Amino acid sequence: MLATVLRSSRFPVYSKPIVTLFHPICRRFYHLSAVYTPLTPQMDAADASEETLRGVLAEKQASVDAQAGVVRKLKAEAAAKADIEAAVESLKALKIEVSAVAKRLQAVVSSSGGGSGDREAFRQVVVNTLERRLFYIPSFKIYRGVAGLYDYGPPGCAVKSNVLSLWRQHFVLEENMLEVDCPCVTPEIVLKASGHVDKFTDLMVKDEKTGSCYRADHLLKDFCKEKLEKDSTLPSVKVAELKHILAVLDDLSTEELGAKLKEYGITAPDTKNPLSDPYPFNLMFQTSIGPSGLSPGYMRPETAQGIFVNFKDLYYYNGYRLPFAAAQIGQAFRNEISPRQGLLRVREFTLAEIEHFVDPEDKSHPKFVDVADLEFLMFPRELQLSGESAKLINLGEAVRKGTINNETLGYFIGRVYLFLTRLGIDKERLRFRQHLPNEMAHYAADCWDAEIECSYGWIECVGIADRSAYDLRAHTDKSGVSLVAHETYPEPREVEKLVITPSKKELGLAFKGNQKMVVEALEALNQAEALEVKAALESKGEIEFGVCTLGKSVIIKKNMVSISMEKKKEHQRVFTPSVIEPSFGIGRIIYCLFEHSFYTRPSKSDDEQLNVFRFPPLVAPIKCTVFPLIKSQQFDEVAKIIARSLRSNGISHIIDITGTSIGKRYARTDEIGVPFAITVDSTSSVTIRERDSKEQIRVSIDEVASVVKEVADGQSTWADIMWRFPTHSASHVDD
Amino acid sequence: MLATVLRSSRFPVYSKPIVTLFHPICRRFYHLSAVYTPLTPQMDAADASEETLRGVLAEKQASVDAQAGVVRKLKAEAAAKADIEAAVESLKALKIEVSAVAKRLQAVVSSSGGGSGDREAFRQVVVNTLERRLFYIPSFKIYRGVAGLYDYGPPGCAVKSNVLSLWRQHFVLEENMLEVDCPCVTPEIVLKASGHVDKFTDLMVKDEKTGSCYRADHLLKDFCKEKLEKDSTLPSVKVAELKHILAVLDDLSTEELGAKLKEYGITAPDTKNPLSDPYPFNLMFQTSIGPSGLSPGYMRPETAQGIFVNFKDLYYYNGYRLPFAAAQIGQAFRNEISPRQGLLRVREFTLAEIEHFVDPEDKSHPKFVDVADLEFLMFPRELQLSGESAKLINLGEAVRKGTINNETLGYFIGRVYLFLTRLGIDKERLRFRQHLPNEMAHYAADCWDAEIECSYGWIECVGIADRSAYDLRAHTDKSGVSLVAHETYPEPREVEKLVITPSKKELGLAFKGNQKMVVEALEALNQAEALEVKAALESKGEIEFGVCTLGKSVIIKKNMVSISMEKKKEHQRVFTPSVIEPSFGIGRIIYCLFEHSFYTRPSKSDDEQLNVFRFPPLVAPIKCTVFPLIKSQQFDEVAKIIARSLRSNGISHIIDITGTSIGKRYARTDEIGVPFAITVDSTSSVTIRERDSKEQIRVSIDEVASVVKEVADGQSTWADIMWRFPTHSASHVDD
Repeated sequence: MLATVLRSSRFPVYSKPIVTLFHPICRRFYHLSAVYTPLTPQMDAADASEETLRGVLAEKQASVDAQAGVVRKLKAEAAAKADIEAAVESLKALKIEVSAVAKRLQAVVSSSGGGSGDREAFRQVVVNTLERRLFYIPSFKIYRGVAGLYDYGPPGCAVKSNVLSLWRQHFVLEENMLEVDCPCVTPEIVLKASGHVDKFTDLMVKDEKTGSCYRADHLLKDFCKEKLEKDSTLPSVKVAELKHILAVLDDLSTEELGAKLKEYGITAPDTKNPLSDPYPFNLMFQTSIGPSGLSPGYMRPETAQGIFVNFKDLYYYNGYRLPFAAAQIGQAFRNEISPRQGLLRVREFTLAEIEHFVDPEDKSHPKFVDVADLEFLMFPRELQLSGESAKLINLGEAVRKGTINNETLGYFIGRVYLFLTRLGIDKERLRFRQHLPNEMAHYAADCWDAEIECSYGWIECVGIADRSAYDLRAHTDKSGVSLVAHETYPEPREVEKLVITPSKKELGLAFKGNQKMVVEALEALNQAEALEVKAALESKGEIEFGVCTLGKSVIIKKNMVSISMEKKKEHQRVFTPSVIEPSFGIGRIIYCLFEHSFYTRPSKSDDEQLNVFRFPPLVAPIKCTVFPLIKSQQFDEVAKIIARSLRSNGISHIIDITGTSIGKRYARTDEIGVPFAITVDSTSSVTIRERDSKEQIRVSIDEVASVVKEVADGQSTWADIMWRFPTHSASHVDD
Repeated sequence: MLATVLRSSRFPVYSKPIVTLFHPICRRFYHLSAVYTPLTPQMDAADASEETLRGVLAEKQASVDAQAGVVRKLKAEAAAKADIEAAVESLKALKIEVSAVAKRLQAVVSSSGGGSGDREAFRQVVVNTLERRLFYIPSFKIYRGVAGLYDYGPPGCAVKSNVLSLWRQHFVLEENMLEVDCPCVTPEIVLKASGHVDKFTDLMVKDEKTGSCYRADHLLKDFCKEKLEKDSTLPSVKVAELKHILAVLDDLSTEELGAKLKEYGITAPDTKNPLSDPYPFNLMFQTSIGPSGLSPGYMRPETAQGIFVNFKDLYYYNGYRLPFAAAQIGQAFRNEISPRQGLLRVREFTLAEIEHFVDPEDKSHPKFVDVADLEFLMFPRELQLSGESAKLINLGEAVRKGTINNETLGYFIGRVYLFLTRLGIDKERLRFRQHLPNEMAHYAADCWDAEIECSYGWIECVGIADRSAYDLRAHTDKSGVSLVAHETYPEPREVEKLVITPSKKELGLAFKGNQKMVVEALEALNQAEALEVKAALESKGEIEFGVCTLGKSVIIKKNMVSISMEKKKEHQRVFTPSVIEPSFGIGRIIYCLFEHSFYTRPSKSDDEQLNVFRFPPLVAPIKCTVFPLIKSQQFDEVAKIIARSLRSNGISHIIDITGTSIGKRYARTDEIGVPFAITVDSTSSVTIRERDSKEQIRVSIDEVASVVKEVADGQSTWADIMWRFPTHSASHVDD
């Protein structure tokens, strides 16, 4: 059985997109409510065809565009706040409809995909190998573990440390980023400002008898899926309804979710007991700072806030120059209600985050040219909405056409692509997916996720978002410390400014006790309104003027207010920088890397399949092994000399002096992805074998450490090395 | 004023020891109660001379030795548990007395030391520089911060990352340690087993009106110190009493501490309100795992437990071979009642811990010979007890003489010495202090602290303890999973084993309902007792035999029990490994490194003092700066080319193209400890200036990156490089 599984070592690469299944890593909470109403009459047919859906989508998208125009117009006209808010709400609702249809379309299009059995079997083999070789270990195993907590064992820990080193080299060093290191324990006020205290929640239900907790959306999802898969008698209207629910699941409000659970009679999965109504459960681990019990704190859910609160100091450190980026690597914590899917959804994980601060009026990037020629799989909103797959797109073109909002965002997308592929992520199973309208917070300018395909589907591993000025403004408001940047003009600029000067004397005479309200209403005029008033006063001498706070109109005369455009000299511009945030879920990247690096090959001696991780040398947990070919004191001595020299070169290695066959020893190290094996078969020279090609070269003992260092550090490739040394032909082959 | 301070840039190196002021980093809770009784009549004289104290100490030490003999004897004879416990308690009490006298002696001996004003001024200058250059930042500063939480800003973060890299290289790679990475969130049961839930506490008092919390021992200490310093009318008996309290402060029980606070009428420092009785406050940050609220968890107070619970898997990973070491770097948390002393006593910190598992019957170390010739400051128990200072002692000799308990412990002490001095810790301000009898847990075989002297006194930065089998046994007991090692004998060994076979039939006839108690008592005999019974039965045919559980003696006859020594074949030995634990407080090491690296030198141009951190290149946050000598497009281009080549060599650097004088630019980088400055003064070659010597060499543009890499990586020293390139004599000097 296992042998069969092993042979289908790599599950097929899907050409069709699969909807991402996971909770976002770095995207911040964004809850909207979406009412379930059949979107259009056509939509209720279970067999809504691809074509029908495309038609509906186009219609819906047009409404979104129109409504967006309305919002823009209202804002430009500085309409009443309530009006703007109402228009924004409608826009949000429309966006959700668009997204729901888009998801259904995706589902229809990708329904021919499948092979989930193969994928699970593949995953089982990888996970078995990973656990057996201690890449990771369920934490506190001897105490029966804790769901969602994992240890990295020795090879996993080494891979992680190599990935982080490469990250530092690729991002921090390359861009001269300002790396900081902030505590995990965070006082409440910081996470109040960021919004996490109020909004970083999942909806939960409790078994009313046992008190067991479940994620409400998981229960509804499981119910719908099972119904759709197993109940062949479902009427088509019902099928459409269930599919629609799956599409809008993330957008249901507390009440809607609760109503659905009730309507379908969903009970606790283990006991069949009734469930409570859903209620929000905050996903942060709470604690108390200091002994008084009066200072609530949380374990940070992300590292970004530590950077934002330091903006002022970092801006100073950078010589008050923009743009600059700060970076942080560290632990983050999310108290998941019911962790699933192994290493992908855990309660504690390592994040590596970058906050690139930039002038909102100039998001160009001087080094964009270095990445503009890259071409890789992108999945912009339009392709998702039209039900197409991700496509190879040229990065320069994507920015030029506005698919990607700006150069800086594009630059980071390119750098993330280079980083992931350098690690060993298969570029055919890596795509950059743009957020759909309802996935993105209203303040965000544009968001893309680097998604990696593994046996669980397409997994969001890096989020790259242009978050505009949101975070700095939130902390400015809460702390009262102004987190802004300045642009000093080379020479002062003359600007026209509106000056409204109410004459308090005249207004007092005319309106007595109401004077204050009238003054305020006059001062609150925007430019367009003020100029209108000015024109009327000049032409007619008076104007009827509505004062909201009085609930009536008054007559304003010419002598009551002076309105003028005056020229002023300004020496600098003060603004809140925009932030572009690439945020890396290190554990997810590593898990996907494990899957992408894994393959099997037949053993020569028997029917068994041998497991191999094809880690690039830079990432490999151990760079080489040293084997004396046969048990011999002489060879053991040589092995020790080589080990010493590897050690002083900083090359991680293991010596294997067990008496087993050289083939078995190769297999053992292939299985933890050691790229090079040094076999000691003489006292003057040794062979080096490369893991994947199994090619061998002969190198003198003096040179061997420096040769391995050269390839392990990535200065040379195996191909570079091959031609410099004689090939060793198979006197001690794999087995 | 500042200039004066700056000139006394380095406070004097004390030849006399200063008592460590700090809470231990890694030593686990150890509370004993000590009653205040004047130790001897002599001791009550305030002017107890050094000689008198030495006499008292010798006496006390003799009592400890005698009592230790009693305990050993009772254990060997397998005496009743209660008797052994009572003897151990007496021993502990005696040890505390010894320690109290030793501390008083130390105080007398070192009372001539001082210069605390100088030290504080020095600290102020260092801390100002560190904060101004963002080595560290009080966390969440814009929200007025949280006591005991600090961020590392860019240069601090880089130093930390370099220190950790060097640690990995020096320990993990060098010894092939198994590095693991476990979560911070830890379920209660693990910390119940380790003892932290019950014993990891400090005694706290509350202001009865405001609820403000204080560490009880701090209040008592502050009171005693102030009295002693400021009250010149104190009678000598009182002086002696207060000094004694300071000496035994750590050992006072809750009740004793409470009684003293009451007796002296100590009130809340800020409000003068009355205080509550002291009560233990657990120093762990508590939280709840999962949504139910039923699974308490804590943020780990140390990383070690993650290794212990994985012992079984790690032993398997190591091919079931001993010894081996596991290592972990990670965050640890302590919810201090009132954090003091800046970076030294914080609520969240990075630990790097090693657990070296070894056969308790063989603690030799094959590589001890590599460190045996080292000679450095050691402060063994005897020197402390006799009031002497730390002495230069040869490591090999210390182990040979038994001063250090065993080779493996000695090996790690040597390796820690090499690590710290390689980082840049001044070896004259580094000593290894052995724990006094009362500092060490009863199970520990031997403990040494690497203490570094800084402006706060001697700070414990690394603890190196032989913890015997304590931790693995504790987790075996709690989890039921046996954490043991096996030694398979090359061939089976014959061993004599005591076999006691009560004859239940005869005993039943004789003792009826009491049979069970008699059987149990017989089976519980240890070897010596059993052989005594056997001899008596053989010679007299019967023996009077006390059965505790019956509260009386019974007569045992020859036919009631058979006692024999039988030979058995054993194939393996099963045992719990001992663990030797070096535990590094990374933040404390870094802070001490900052102080040891800091110096000032006069500026040539004016009266100002310039600050310099003399970090070794490996540790320096940034390896080099690139300065175009004058503003020029040509030079800027060259600077860019050099920067690119530094980047591709992985060398951190900054370009400074501001137009300020070269001297000012040098000063700016000296102040963050950049070891090399490249000045671009032509388009073919450049100068490299070394920070401390200010020597300059001229190097071609093509070579400059590889030269800097060579010294930055520690492959060559500046001295090695100097003779290879022409010296550049001072055309652009500092200023």
